[in-house]
Amino acid sequence: MTVMASFVHPNLADVSLAAALHALSDPVRLIMVAKLDLGHDLNCTAASPCEPVPKSTISNHFRILRNAGLVETKSAGREMINTLRRAQFDARFPGLLDSVLANRPA
Amino acid sequence: MTVMASFVHPNLADVSLAAALHALSDPVRLIMVAKLDLGHDLNCTAASPCEPVPKSTISNHFRILRNAGLVETKSAGREMINTLRRAQFDARFPGLLDSVLANRPA
Repeated sequence: MTVMASFVHPNLADVSLAAALHALSDPVRLIMVAKLDLGHDLNCTAASPCEPVPKSTISNHFRILRNAGLVETKSAGREMINTLRRAQFDARFPGLLDSVLANRPA
Repeated sequence: MTVMASFVHPNLADVSLAAALHALSDPVRLIMVAKLDLGHDLNCTAASPCEPVPKSTISNHFRILRNAGLVETKSAGREMINTLRRAQFDARFPGLLDSVLANRPA
């Protein structure tokens, strides 16, 4: 029997503005969100920054992003596929993610 | 001889997006910033949330806001006067503070 990892995805209505900003307030998570914004359905490696970051650190960043309603993670075979919950996040916090991503360093 | 408290105010160019978002990622600091956005030059009491928050906690929040380039603190007699560095912050992160404040709960 295979035990599948299951992930908790909150209702966006339950995510506070402070929690959303906290999830975005880290340089590595900002890179991950920007990558997910450009390319949908990325596995963990593709969504990670180029610099070497330990896998457990990336997992923790994904957990924080999921808890803030920013990312959905699904298991697909042996991979975990991550998608930005763009439409739902934008509906909850209009304009916020756009202005954050627009202010990322070039 | 009176020793005046002196406060460090960073150049906005040295504030990272992650640091700015971190400063804004706390419910008490969001209230403080919103109050400062409405009323200029507030002393610490006026800039604090209505709920009782210890003075040392408020001082710490002001320090985090100053370090992120959001607030300027000046001593005026026995008071500390706080001002939002709105124009400088907006020049560094265009549209960011507007979208954060617009998404605060009513």
